[in-house]
Amino acid sequence: MNNLSDAVIRRLPSYYRHLEELENAGIIQISSSELGDRMQMTPSQIRQDINSFGGFGRQGYGYSVHELKEHLREIMGLNREHRMVIMGAGRIGRAIANYAGFGNAGYHAVALFDPDPARQGQIGQNIPIFPIEELRERLPGLYVSIAVLATPEETAQETLDELYSLGIRGFWNFAPVDLNYPPDASVVNVHLIDSLFMLGYLMNHPESL
Amino acid sequence: MNNLSDAVIRRLPSYYRHLEELENAGIIQISSSELGDRMQMTPSQIRQDINSFGGFGRQGYGYSVHELKEHLREIMGLNREHRMVIMGAGRIGRAIANYAGFGNAGYHAVALFDPDPARQGQIGQNIPIFPIEELRERLPGLYVSIAVLATPEETAQETLDELYSLGIRGFWNFAPVDLNYPPDASVVNVHLIDSLFMLGYLMNHPESL
Repeated sequence: MNNLSDAVIRRLPSYYRHLEELENAGIIQISSSELGDRMQMTPSQIRQDINSFGGFGRQGYGYSVHELKEHLREIMGLNREHRMVIMGAGRIGRAIANYAGFGNAGYHAVALFDPDPARQGQIGQNIPIFPIEELRERLPGLYVSIAVLATPEETAQETLDELYSLGIRGFWNFAPVDLNYPPDASVVNVHLIDSLFMLGYLMNHPESL
Repeated sequence: MNNLSDAVIRRLPSYYRHLEELENAGIIQISSSELGDRMQMTPSQIRQDINSFGGFGRQGYGYSVHELKEHLREIMGLNREHRMVIMGAGRIGRAIANYAGFGNAGYHAVALFDPDPARQGQIGQNIPIFPIEELRERLPGLYVSIAVLATPEETAQETLDELYSLGIRGFWNFAPVDLNYPPDASVVNVHLIDSLFMLGYLMNHPESL
């Protein structure tokens, strides 16, 4: 498999979701034009994407829904469990800890850390909230691979730096800042306000729709 | 101004955030290479982006931070107030209603609608939660331009269709489905689980970093 373009990586979850729906609906094979209709893309875009992530169709048969879905599961790492630590037990950190949908997909929040003593204790399904001072001591025993950055924007960078020094390489960042990170780390940003601004732009520029 | 590419539209909020930080730090002018260093882009990418959204620099002076920021404010529609209705008063709908950051940016949640009688009442800064049955009657008096779709995925499409029929053209969608919508509507998706899957992919494929 070649390196995928950003645009294709961004579409992988959408492919996976559609294939899951198709499989649940009992559909066994699908052509690029049928999949294109569902995903509002052209058949040739679909074929190009699927080729690039190493899925193969058969002339006249299309793609096996199950095979393609399983292939995506593997390249997206969905066949593994991911343990996550949540940095910051404010509104966003707690909402993520409480959201069941991530667990169903194999992503489990196992602990939160927060500097505020008023926020210590437990949350949701018995997920502990620890004082931030205990991070270095507790992290090795938590076996996490992903850190959710739900800190104020002022402390997001230093939080990333400290977690990186402790061996964490995957960061899901909710703080509205662009973070610096070493080349062997991965950062995916969820900047809610950015997506609202994008909507503002699109509504303001109907000619770009 | 030409139509902007998706990639540039996606970067607009990041430009805006950096320019705001620069202005707050008292910086008046910035060159494409300085801005590139901050944004981890090349100077020529920066110049190309800024040209495409109609900002002009001067040879040897760079860009006026304030002018460029104000220009972005205008094209992103930040110089206007946006009133939003939130469809669904579950965990996500309530978190959005409670989040102060959107109000600071001119986006105000003015009401929620939910079918569950147990969820009716008020939330946060006196934002009412109405029964969904009252949508058609109440919507015209709320003067909203944006609907936040925080419904279960099963009802997101019908909710969009009904709101469209009532004149709403901007949708901020948190339901994990790809929605169909007429060409004069704008939809921006926040699929949290998708961004987590992207992180899973990136961590699984260090060669693509």
